[in-house]
Amino acid sequence: MTTTATASTRERLLDAAAELFYRDGVGIGVEALCRAAGVSKRSMYQLFGSKDEVLAAALQRRAPSYETLLIPPKDEPGPPRARILYVFERLEAASTEPAYRGCPFLAVEVELKNPEHPASQVARRAKQALTDFFRTEAERGGAHDPGLLARQLTLVFDGASARAGVGSETLDGLTLTTAGALLDAAGVQE
Amino acid sequence: MTTTATASTRERLLDAAAELFYRDGVGIGVEALCRAAGVSKRSMYQLFGSKDEVLAAALQRRAPSYETLLIPPKDEPGPPRARILYVFERLEAASTEPAYRGCPFLAVEVELKNPEHPASQVARRAKQALTDFFRTEAERGGAHDPGLLARQLTLVFDGASARAGVGSETLDGLTLTTAGALLDAAGVQE
Repeated sequence: MTTTATASTRERLLDAAAELFYRDGVGIGVEALCRAAGVSKRSMYQLFGSKDEVLAAALQRRAPSYETLLIPPKDEPGPPRARILYVFERLEAASTEPAYRGCPFLAVEVELKNPEHPASQVARRAKQALTDFFRTEAERGGAHDPGLLARQLTLVFDGASARAGVGSETLDGLTLTTAGALLDAAGVQE
Repeated sequence: MTTTATASTRERLLDAAAELFYRDGVGIGVEALCRAAGVSKRSMYQLFGSKDEVLAAALQRRAPSYETLLIPPKDEPGPPRARILYVFERLEAASTEPAYRGCPFLAVEVELKNPEHPASQVARRAKQALTDFFRTEAERGGAHDPGLLARQLTLVFDGASARAGVGSETLDGLTLTTAGALLDAAGVQE
Protein backbone atom coordinates (compact mmCIF):
# COMPACT_ATOMS: atom_id res chain seq x y z
CA MET A 1 0.00 0.00 0.00
CA THR A 2 1.09 3.58 -0.51
CA THR A 3 1.47 5.84 2.52
CA THR A 4 -1.79 7.63 1.68
CA ALA A 5 -3.69 4.40 1.23
CA THR A 6 -2.32 3.18 4.56
CA ALA A 7 -3.40 6.39 6.30
CA SER A 8 -6.87 6.12 4.87
CA THR A 9 -7.19 2.42 5.80
CA ARG A 10 -6.03 3.27 9.31
CA GLU A 11 -8.56 6.08 9.65
CA ARG A 12 -11.39 3.99 8.24
CA LEU A 13 -10.59 1.18 10.64
CA LEU A 14 -10.37 3.47 13.66
CA ASP A 15 -13.58 5.30 12.85
CA ALA A 16 -15.47 2.05 12.41
CA ALA A 17 -13.87 0.69 15.60
CA ALA A 18 -14.83 3.75 17.64
CA GLU A 19 -18.42 3.48 16.46
CA LEU A 20 -18.74 -0.27 16.97
CA PHE A 21 -17.02 -0.41 20.35
CA TYR A 22 -19.25 2.45 21.50
CA ARG A 23 -22.44 0.84 20.28
CA ASP A 24 -21.75 -2.81 21.13
CA GLY A 25 -18.93 -2.82 23.66
CA VAL A 26 -15.31 -3.87 23.71
CA GLY A 27 -16.22 -7.53 23.19
CA ILE A 28 -16.79 -6.99 19.47
CA GLY A 29 -14.74 -9.43 17.39
CA VAL A 30 -12.00 -8.72 14.88
CA GLU A 31 -14.13 -10.20 12.05
CA ALA A 32 -17.05 -7.86 12.72
CA LEU A 33 -14.71 -4.93 13.11
CA CYS A 34 -12.92 -5.50 9.81
CA ARG A 35 -16.20 -6.15 8.01
CA ALA A 36 -17.69 -2.88 9.28
CA ALA A 37 -14.55 -0.97 8.31
CA GLY A 38 -14.25 -2.64 4.91
CA VAL A 39 -10.68 -3.58 5.80
CA SER A 40 -9.11 -7.03 5.53
CA LYS A 41 -7.80 -8.72 8.67
CA ARG A 42 -4.42 -8.80 6.98
CA SER A 43 -4.50 -5.00 6.60
CA MET A 44 -5.57 -4.61 10.20
CA TYR A 45 -2.69 -6.70 11.48
CA GLN A 46 -0.26 -4.78 9.25
CA LEU A 47 -1.31 -1.62 11.07
CA PHE A 48 -1.94 -2.88 14.61
CA GLY A 49 -0.53 -5.69 16.71
CA SER A 50 -3.89 -6.61 18.25
CA LYS A 51 -7.52 -5.67 18.74
CA ASP A 52 -6.51 -4.06 22.04
CA GLU A 53 -4.24 -1.68 20.14
CA VAL A 54 -7.05 -0.84 17.72
CA LEU A 55 -9.29 -0.05 20.67
CA ALA A 56 -6.69 2.20 22.30
CA ALA A 57 -5.96 4.02 19.02
CA ALA A 58 -9.67 4.44 18.25
CA LEU A 59 -10.25 6.06 21.64
CA GLN A 60 -7.19 8.23 21.23
CA ARG A 61 -8.45 9.41 17.85
CA ARG A 62 -11.77 10.33 19.44
CA ALA A 63 -10.34 12.32 22.36
CA PRO A 64 -9.88 15.73 20.64
CA SER A 65 -13.45 15.88 19.27
CA TYR A 66 -14.79 14.83 22.67
CA GLU A 67 -12.90 17.68 24.25
CA THR A 68 -14.15 20.11 21.60
CA LEU A 69 -17.70 18.94 22.18
CA LEU A 70 -17.63 19.45 25.94
CA ILE A 71 -15.07 22.07 26.85
CA PRO A 72 -15.50 25.71 25.84
CA PRO A 73 -12.65 27.16 23.72
CA LYS A 74 -9.71 28.66 25.62
CA ASP A 75 -9.95 31.96 23.73
CA GLU A 76 -13.52 32.54 24.92
CA PRO A 77 -12.81 33.17 28.58
CA GLY A 78 -16.15 34.13 30.18
CA PRO A 79 -16.97 33.64 33.86
CA PRO A 80 -15.65 30.34 35.32
CA ARG A 81 -19.09 29.30 36.57
CA ALA A 82 -20.61 29.66 33.12
CA ARG A 83 -17.68 27.81 31.55
CA ILE A 84 -18.17 24.91 33.94
CA LEU A 85 -21.92 24.80 33.37
CA TYR A 86 -21.29 24.81 29.61
CA VAL A 87 -19.88 21.28 29.97
CA PHE A 88 -23.10 20.08 31.57
CA GLU A 89 -25.23 21.84 28.96
CA ARG A 90 -23.30 20.00 26.26
CA LEU A 91 -23.55 16.70 28.14
CA GLU A 92 -27.31 17.09 28.52
CA ALA A 93 -27.73 17.95 24.83
CA ALA A 94 -25.58 14.97 23.76
CA SER A 95 -27.52 12.62 26.05
CA THR A 96 -30.75 13.21 24.12
CA GLU A 97 -29.30 11.73 20.91
CA PRO A 98 -30.87 8.30 20.19
CA ALA A 99 -27.41 6.73 19.78
CA TYR A 100 -26.17 8.07 23.11
CA ARG A 101 -24.65 5.33 25.29
CA GLY A 102 -22.84 7.47 27.86
CA CYS A 103 -19.24 8.62 28.01
CA PRO A 104 -17.21 6.41 25.64
CA PHE A 105 -14.14 6.62 27.86
CA LEU A 106 -15.82 5.66 31.10
CA ALA A 107 -17.67 2.84 29.32
CA VAL A 108 -14.42 1.34 28.03
CA GLU A 109 -12.89 1.49 31.50
CA VAL A 110 -15.95 -0.17 33.06
CA GLU A 111 -15.97 -2.86 30.38
CA LEU A 112 -12.26 -3.65 30.40
CA LYS A 113 -11.97 -3.82 34.21
CA ASN A 114 -8.25 -3.43 33.82
CA PRO A 115 -6.64 -0.05 34.53
CA GLU A 116 -3.39 -1.24 32.90
CA HIS A 117 -4.99 -1.96 29.53
CA PRO A 118 -3.68 0.55 26.92
CA ALA A 119 -7.24 1.66 26.14
CA SER A 120 -7.99 2.21 29.85
CA GLN A 121 -4.94 4.44 30.01
CA VAL A 122 -6.10 6.47 27.01
CA ALA A 123 -9.56 6.74 28.57
CA ARG A 124 -8.17 7.85 31.93
CA ARG A 125 -6.13 10.61 30.30
CA ALA A 126 -9.17 11.84 28.35
CA LYS A 127 -11.24 11.99 31.54
CA GLN A 128 -8.39 13.66 33.41
CA ALA A 129 -8.49 16.50 30.85
CA LEU A 130 -12.07 17.18 31.90
CA THR A 131 -11.24 17.13 35.63
CA ASP A 132 -8.27 19.42 34.94
CA PHE A 133 -10.54 21.85 33.11
CA PHE A 134 -12.96 21.88 36.07
CA ARG A 135 -10.06 22.50 38.42
CA THR A 136 -8.63 25.40 36.42
CA GLU A 137 -12.02 27.09 36.27
CA ALA A 138 -12.70 26.34 39.95
CA GLU A 139 -9.44 28.11 40.82
CA ARG A 140 -10.28 31.08 38.60
CA GLY A 141 -13.73 31.21 40.21
CA GLY A 142 -12.32 31.34 43.73
CA ALA A 143 -13.60 27.94 44.92
CA HIS A 144 -12.74 27.18 48.55
CA ASP A 145 -11.19 23.88 47.48
CA PRO A 146 -10.74 23.74 43.67
CA GLY A 147 -9.42 20.18 43.67
CA LEU A 148 -12.43 18.93 45.63
CA LEU A 149 -14.91 20.79 43.43
CA ALA A 150 -13.29 19.38 40.30
CA ARG A 151 -13.62 15.83 41.65
CA GLN A 152 -17.25 16.45 42.65
CA LEU A 153 -18.14 17.78 39.21
CA THR A 154 -16.47 14.78 37.61
CA LEU A 155 -18.57 12.44 39.78
CA VAL A 156 -21.72 14.20 38.64
CA PHE A 157 -20.59 14.11 35.02
CA ASP A 158 -19.78 10.40 35.12
CA GLY A 159 -22.86 9.42 37.10
CA ALA A 160 -25.07 11.36 34.71
CA SER A 161 -23.45 10.09 31.53
CA ALA A 162 -23.64 6.50 32.77
CA ARG A 163 -27.25 6.72 33.91
CA ALA A 164 -28.42 8.55 30.80
CA GLY A 165 -26.38 6.19 28.61
CA VAL A 166 -28.14 3.09 29.97
CA GLY A 167 -31.54 4.74 29.76
CA SER A 168 -32.13 4.99 33.53
CA GLU A 169 -32.24 8.77 33.60
CA THR A 170 -33.37 11.66 31.42
CA LEU A 171 -31.17 14.53 32.42
CA ASP A 172 -33.38 17.48 31.52
CA GLY A 173 -31.54 20.04 33.64
CA LEU A 174 -30.58 17.56 36.38
CA THR A 175 -26.82 17.98 36.01
CA LEU A 176 -27.11 21.77 35.72
CA THR A 177 -29.03 21.93 39.00
CA THR A 178 -26.63 19.53 40.68
CA ALA A 179 -23.47 21.23 39.43
CA GLY A 180 -25.03 24.58 40.37
CA ALA A 181 -25.57 23.44 43.97
CA LEU A 182 -21.97 22.22 44.20
CA LEU A 183 -20.65 25.49 42.71
CA ASP A 184 -22.72 27.42 45.29
CA ALA A 185 -21.37 25.26 48.11
CA ALA A 186 -17.81 25.87 46.87
CA GLY A 187 -18.38 29.64 46.73
CA VAL A 188 -18.13 30.00 42.94
CA GLN A 189 -20.48 32.87 42.11
CA GLU A 190 -22.14 33.87 38.84
CA MET B 1 -31.17 -34.81 40.11
CA THR B 2 -33.14 -34.52 43.32
CA THR B 3 -34.82 -31.21 44.12
CA THR B 4 -32.17 -30.43 46.72
CA ALA B 5 -29.33 -31.27 44.38
CA THR B 6 -30.91 -29.06 41.73
CA ALA B 7 -31.24 -26.18 44.18
CA SER B 8 -27.63 -26.51 45.22
CA THR B 9 -26.43 -26.71 41.60
CA ARG B 10 -28.47 -23.63 40.80
CA GLU B 11 -27.03 -21.71 43.75
CA ARG B 12 -23.48 -22.78 42.98
CA LEU B 13 -23.87 -21.71 39.38
CA LEU B 14 -25.40 -18.35 40.25
CA ASP B 15 -22.79 -17.57 42.90
CA ALA B 16 -19.96 -18.38 40.49
CA ALA B 17 -21.70 -16.40 37.76
CA ALA B 18 -22.16 -13.32 39.94
CA GLU B 19 -18.48 -13.40 40.88
CA LEU B 20 -17.16 -14.00 37.36
CA PHE B 21 -19.43 -11.50 35.62
CA TYR B 22 -18.45 -8.91 38.21
CA ARG B 23 -14.74 -9.57 37.88
CA ASP B 24 -14.46 -10.13 34.14
CA GLY B 25 -17.59 -8.68 32.58
CA VAL B 26 -20.67 -10.05 30.86
CA GLY B 27 -18.61 -11.36 27.94
CA ILE B 28 -17.48 -14.38 29.95
CA GLY B 29 -18.23 -17.63 28.10
CA VAL B 30 -20.47 -20.51 29.14
CA GLU B 31 -17.47 -22.86 29.29
CA ALA B 32 -15.59 -20.66 31.76
CA LEU B 33 -18.72 -20.12 33.77
CA CYS B 34 -19.52 -23.82 34.13
CA ARG B 35 -15.89 -24.63 34.89
CA ALA B 36 -15.77 -22.05 37.69
CA ALA B 37 -19.06 -23.28 39.14
CA GLY B 38 -18.12 -26.96 38.84
CA VAL B 39 -21.35 -27.53 36.90
CA SER B 40 -21.73 -29.29 33.56
CA LYS B 41 -23.09 -27.38 30.60
CA ARG B 42 -25.88 -29.91 30.44
CA SER B 43 -26.86 -29.08 34.03
CA MET B 44 -26.71 -25.40 33.27
CA TYR B 45 -29.04 -25.73 30.30
CA GLN B 46 -31.40 -27.90 32.37
CA LEU B 47 -31.76 -24.98 34.75
CA PHE B 48 -31.53 -21.97 32.43
CA GLY B 49 -32.43 -21.34 28.82
CA SER B 50 -29.37 -19.23 28.08
CA LYS B 51 -26.36 -17.43 29.52
CA ASP B 52 -28.46 -14.27 29.50
CA GLU B 53 -30.90 -15.91 31.89
CA VAL B 54 -28.03 -17.01 34.14
CA LEU B 55 -26.79 -13.43 34.21
CA ALA B 56 -30.22 -12.04 35.09
CA ALA B 57 -30.77 -14.65 37.81
CA ALA B 58 -27.28 -14.12 39.26
CA LEU B 59 -27.94 -10.38 39.56
CA GLN B 60 -31.35 -11.01 41.04
CA ARG B 61 -29.83 -13.31 43.65
CA ARG B 62 -27.34 -10.59 44.55
CA ALA B 63 -29.88 -7.78 44.95
CA PRO B 64 -30.97 -8.43 48.57
CA SER B 65 -27.42 -8.55 49.96
CA TYR B 66 -26.55 -5.41 48.02
CA GLU B 67 -29.49 -3.65 49.61
CA THR B 68 -28.52 -4.96 53.06
CA LEU B 69 -24.98 -3.72 52.51
CA LEU B 70 -25.98 -0.19 51.56
CA ILE B 71 -29.35 0.67 53.04
CA PRO B 72 -29.85 1.00 56.80
CA PRO B 73 -32.48 -1.33 58.29
CA LYS B 74 -36.05 -0.04 58.30
CA ASP B 75 -36.44 -0.65 62.04
CA GLU B 76 -33.51 1.63 62.89
CA PRO B 77 -35.13 4.93 61.94
CA GLY B 78 -32.65 7.69 62.90
CA PRO B 79 -32.54 11.11 61.25
CA PRO B 80 -33.06 11.03 57.45
CA ARG B 81 -29.82 12.86 56.76
CA ALA B 82 -27.79 10.32 58.70
CA ARG B 83 -29.62 7.45 57.00
CA ILE B 84 -28.79 8.88 53.59
CA LEU B 85 -25.14 9.46 54.49
CA TYR B 86 -24.95 5.86 55.78
CA VAL B 87 -25.29 4.70 52.16
CA PHE B 88 -22.25 6.74 51.15
CA GLU B 89 -20.26 5.56 54.16
CA ARG B 90 -20.94 1.98 53.11
CA LEU B 91 -20.10 2.76 49.48
CA GLU B 92 -16.81 4.34 50.47
CA ALA B 93 -15.92 1.40 52.73
CA ALA B 94 -16.78 -1.12 49.98
CA SER B 95 -14.74 0.81 47.42
CA THR B 96 -11.51 0.22 49.35
CA GLU B 97 -11.75 -3.58 48.90
CA PRO B 98 -9.11 -4.80 46.41
CA ALA B 99 -11.77 -6.70 44.42
CA TYR B 100 -14.02 -3.64 44.11
CA ARG B 101 -15.08 -2.99 40.51
CA GLY B 102 -17.93 -0.55 41.09
CA CYS B 103 -21.65 -1.14 41.34
CA PRO B 104 -22.40 -4.58 39.82
CA PHE B 105 -25.78 -3.43 38.52
CA LEU B 106 -24.58 -0.29 36.80
CA ALA B 107 -21.64 -2.22 35.31
CA VAL B 108 -23.95 -4.81 33.76
CA GLU B 109 -26.15 -2.09 32.28
CA VAL B 110 -23.12 -0.28 30.84
CA GLU B 111 -21.74 -3.52 29.41
CA LEU B 112 -24.96 -4.85 27.92
CA LYS B 113 -25.96 -1.55 26.28
CA ASN B 114 -29.47 -2.91 25.99
CA PRO B 115 -32.13 -1.71 28.44
CA GLU B 116 -34.46 -4.52 27.30
CA HIS B 117 -32.06 -7.31 28.27
CA PRO B 118 -33.49 -9.28 31.23
CA ALA B 119 -30.35 -8.58 33.26
CA SER B 120 -30.58 -4.84 32.52
CA GLN B 121 -34.12 -4.92 33.84
CA VAL B 122 -33.04 -6.66 37.04
CA ALA B 123 -30.23 -4.13 37.43
CA ARG B 124 -32.52 -1.17 36.88
CA ARG B 125 -34.94 -2.40 39.54
CA ALA B 126 -32.09 -2.87 42.02
CA LYS B 127 -30.86 0.66 41.39
CA GLN B 128 -34.40 2.01 41.60
CA ALA B 129 -34.64 0.60 45.14
CA LEU B 130 -31.73 2.83 46.11
CA THR B 131 -33.25 5.92 44.48
CA ASP B 132 -36.56 5.12 46.19
CA PHE B 133 -34.80 4.89 49.55
CA PHE B 134 -33.18 8.30 48.97
CA ARG B 135 -36.55 9.75 48.04
CA THR B 136 -38.34 8.40 51.10
CA GLU B 137 -35.66 9.80 53.39
CA ALA B 138 -35.57 13.10 51.48
CA GLU B 139 -39.32 13.45 52.06
CA ARG B 140 -38.97 12.60 55.75
CA GLY B 141 -36.13 15.12 56.00
CA GLY B 142 -38.23 17.91 54.48
CA ALA B 143 -36.24 18.34 51.23
CA HIS B 144 -37.57 21.13 49.01
CA ASP B 145 -37.81 18.68 46.11
CA PRO B 146 -37.38 15.07 47.31
CA GLY B 147 -37.51 13.57 43.82
CA LEU B 148 -34.75 15.88 42.60
CA LEU B 149 -32.56 15.20 45.62
CA ALA B 150 -32.99 11.44 45.19
CA ARG B 151 -31.88 11.68 41.55
CA GLN B 152 -28.92 13.88 42.48
CA LEU B 153 -27.77 11.45 45.16
CA THR B 154 -28.08 8.57 42.71
CA LEU B 155 -25.87 10.45 40.22
CA VAL B 156 -23.24 10.91 42.90
CA PHE B 157 -23.51 7.26 43.94
CA ASP B 158 -23.15 5.98 40.38
CA GLY B 159 -20.41 8.40 39.40
CA ALA B 160 -18.46 7.50 42.51
CA SER B 161 -18.92 3.75 42.21
CA ALA B 162 -17.91 3.83 38.54
CA ARG B 163 -14.86 6.02 39.08
CA ALA B 164 -13.67 4.10 42.13
CA GLY B 165 -14.41 0.81 40.38
CA VAL B 166 -12.12 1.61 37.45
CA GLY B 167 -9.40 2.95 39.73
CA SER B 168 -9.72 6.61 38.67
CA GLU B 169 -10.77 7.86 42.07
CA THR B 170 -10.12 7.13 45.73
CA LEU B 171 -13.26 8.24 47.49
CA ASP B 172 -11.88 9.00 50.95
CA GLY B 173 -14.83 11.13 52.07
CA LEU B 174 -15.53 12.57 48.62
CA THR B 175 -19.09 11.22 48.36
CA LEU B 176 -19.91 12.21 51.95
CA THR B 177 -18.84 15.80 51.27
CA THR B 178 -20.71 15.86 47.96
CA ALA B 179 -23.91 14.29 49.30
CA GLY B 180 -23.66 16.63 52.30
CA ALA B 181 -23.55 19.70 50.04
CA LEU B 182 -26.59 18.46 48.11
CA LEU B 183 -28.48 17.72 51.34
CA ASP B 184 -27.68 21.25 52.53
CA ALA B 185 -28.88 22.74 49.24
CA ALA B 186 -32.12 20.74 49.52
CA GLY B 187 -32.69 21.93 53.08
CA VAL B 188 -32.23 18.54 54.79
CA GLN B 189 -30.72 19.41 58.16
CA GLU B 190 -28.78 17.26 60.65
